[in-house]
Amino acid sequence: MKVEAEWMRGGTSKCWVFEADSLADTRTELDELLPRLFGSPDPRQIDGVGGGTSTTSKAVILSRPADRTVDVEFTFAQVGIEEATVDWGSNCGNCSAVVGLYAIEKGWVTPRGDHTRIVTRNTNTNQIIIQRVSTPAGALPIVPDAQMPGVVFPGYRVGLGFQDPAGKTTGNLLPTGSPTDTITVDGTKWTVSMVDAGAPVAMVQATEVGLDAADYSSWTAGVLPHLGTLERIRRQAAVRMGLAPTEAAAARAIPKLAIIGRPAEAATDADINVLMLSMGQPHPALAITGSIAITLAASTPGTVVHRHCATTAAATLRLQTPAGVIETWREDRDGSLLVGVDRTARTIASTTLHVPEVLGFAVEPALAAATQ
Amino acid sequence: MKVEAEWMRGGTSKCWVFEADSLADTRTELDELLPRLFGSPDPRQIDGVGGGTSTTSKAVILSRPADRTVDVEFTFAQVGIEEATVDWGSNCGNCSAVVGLYAIEKGWVTPRGDHTRIVTRNTNTNQIIIQRVSTPAGALPIVPDAQMPGVVFPGYRVGLGFQDPAGKTTGNLLPTGSPTDTITVDGTKWTVSMVDAGAPVAMVQATEVGLDAADYSSWTAGVLPHLGTLERIRRQAAVRMGLAPTEAAAARAIPKLAIIGRPAEAATDADINVLMLSMGQPHPALAITGSIAITLAASTPGTVVHRHCATTAAATLRLQTPAGVIETWREDRDGSLLVGVDRTARTIASTTLHVPEVLGFAVEPALAAATQ
Repeated sequence: MKVEAEWMRGGTSKCWVFEADSLADTRTELDELLPRLFGSPDPRQIDGVGGGTSTTSKAVILSRPADRTVDVEFTFAQVGIEEATVDWGSNCGNCSAVVGLYAIEKGWVTPRGDHTRIVTRNTNTNQIIIQRVSTPAGALPIVPDAQMPGVVFPGYRVGLGFQDPAGKTTGNLLPTGSPTDTITVDGTKWTVSMVDAGAPVAMVQATEVGLDAADYSSWTAGVLPHLGTLERIRRQAAVRMGLAPTEAAAARAIPKLAIIGRPAEAATDADINVLMLSMGQPHPALAITGSIAITLAASTPGTVVHRHCATTAAATLRLQTPAGVIETWREDRDGSLLVGVDRTARTIASTTLHVPEVLGFAVEPALAAATQ
Repeated sequence: MKVEAEWMRGGTSKCWVFEADSLADTRTELDELLPRLFGSPDPRQIDGVGGGTSTTSKAVILSRPADRTVDVEFTFAQVGIEEATVDWGSNCGNCSAVVGLYAIEKGWVTPRGDHTRIVTRNTNTNQIIIQRVSTPAGALPIVPDAQMPGVVFPGYRVGLGFQDPAGKTTGNLLPTGSPTDTITVDGTKWTVSMVDAGAPVAMVQATEVGLDAADYSSWTAGVLPHLGTLERIRRQAAVRMGLAPTEAAAARAIPKLAIIGRPAEAATDADINVLMLSMGQPHPALAITGSIAITLAASTPGTVVHRHCATTAAATLRLQTPAGVIETWREDRDGSLLVGVDRTARTIASTTLHVPEVLGFAVEPALAAATQ
């Protein structure tokens, strides 16, 4: 049994891109098929296509909906590494950036003008993402030449605009109704902003983690002794935001957790210092979906981002991350708010994956079951 | 520009397998092309096919020589990760195990009987490796079902027999003429066996590293404070074995370094405890080429392996490694000595790699330059 896939870099992630129809042809449950293709469970994923890290164990499943107001519908899958599981509960902004490029490369969308607009819908979060791919003179350049922080090599420029992102998961930008709440762990009170935009994010202040807010280079190592406490804050936040009935039932990937701090006065290239955690570890760059929440929090009085941000009313926000400064933007267009960020993307390989074992057959078409 | 490749697991490594002709078609120097395809220099190799670890940044280049005494000739390439370099100086036993399977899957060799014999020659080390692939009833099984330590999923069984492996790199099994020599680092004397078979290996005793020889589970952590000293021993050994003119000029991958110890008396499943270092770090399993040297050292009086080995004259040797016990074997056949080990292998994906930038053109055909 074989399955076609494109292996693409989207931002700082590597993503395996499948068409829903070809996965359905396998008549195998995706919760069984994807871990086997990726080589899970195995911390090294040595017998599959996964890369043994959270940013390299990702899949995107594409389809072309009958509803022609959307060009491409896509579902994101975070494939487990040490466990043979799939987390369907959130989207990945980096992998979102491959969708528009795929649509152009496969002829699903015809490039027009210097920038081609592709309307995509992420099914995990029911989020419309308007993608803008650079196509000078109406075509992809032969040699991709756009650069971005955290990636050594150039790719194609892809702008991702999240349309009216507030409350897509919980119904409200501030699911608790307040820009900050107090969460208590072992008797210590934490000031936490819980914001839902792009993805649900719990935000804490660097100073409360014992980090020097302005000395950003010390954060990645400095946070390590506090990962356990931050995980408990995140789980309490999951309950407060209505994402889980109990702390124990909180998903590993939702909400995300971000540490926020004010840059040093002398630092003029960033408006806010941000360190995100991913699956309990410091993120090497930034979860793009989470950056949307931080961007809206910056313009929402009372949040910890608004409190520490150098500028709160500009059209762009510059976030300091371990991979460099990432700029987000917001624009009002046609009565909706687009909040976004530019990424680069590139197709690494066109592949046919070999499925080695006889897996169980699905009772229902695979994707339908997975995206219910 | 595009390049065809098969992505295969060989033993505990992932290997990118190219045909020499298709690489030559690119008219690009392999020392430039391979790092770019793999995404180097970048510790994460996020824009290429490399996996960001030494066991997942490997390529094998195949050709069918006019000399019909050999079925397949292959060259191994260890592709740098943080540097855009290729190390052509040694072979990889795990990646060797994909060659016979590739030859059968592509129809280069017709399976015959329950085991199909493929004669391969590694060009890095000028080593003939006789491969024996299980083909019950004259064909590869539809579902591969052979297991091995360190790999969760099954593959096809491949036996690797190194033909007359002694001295292939230096001319002698014991390049210094002695089964042990003394190497001094910072005034401390180390007893080191330097053995050339499969690959050149410098072997030290666990007790001299301060490790409890019998308490194998403590080695991987216990060796960490000593990595600097062991690297200096390895570099001195490179000079003693005639592999480098000076310690500074020693290659990173040759010789390999192995720590050797006698198993606890109660341990009955292994004859010798072995921890190898790879690129300066503890190897998660075992370099197969190095295990050939250890196997011959076990039957060579005076070496540190012979000294600590539970059995020295058996046809098989059981090596305790972090991934489990690996058994090597030796047999005399047709006047030559075959020393070997069984692995499993599997094709993960058939791919077309996209080469994004316009790279420089080679003056000479690429492979010829690389394998001179």
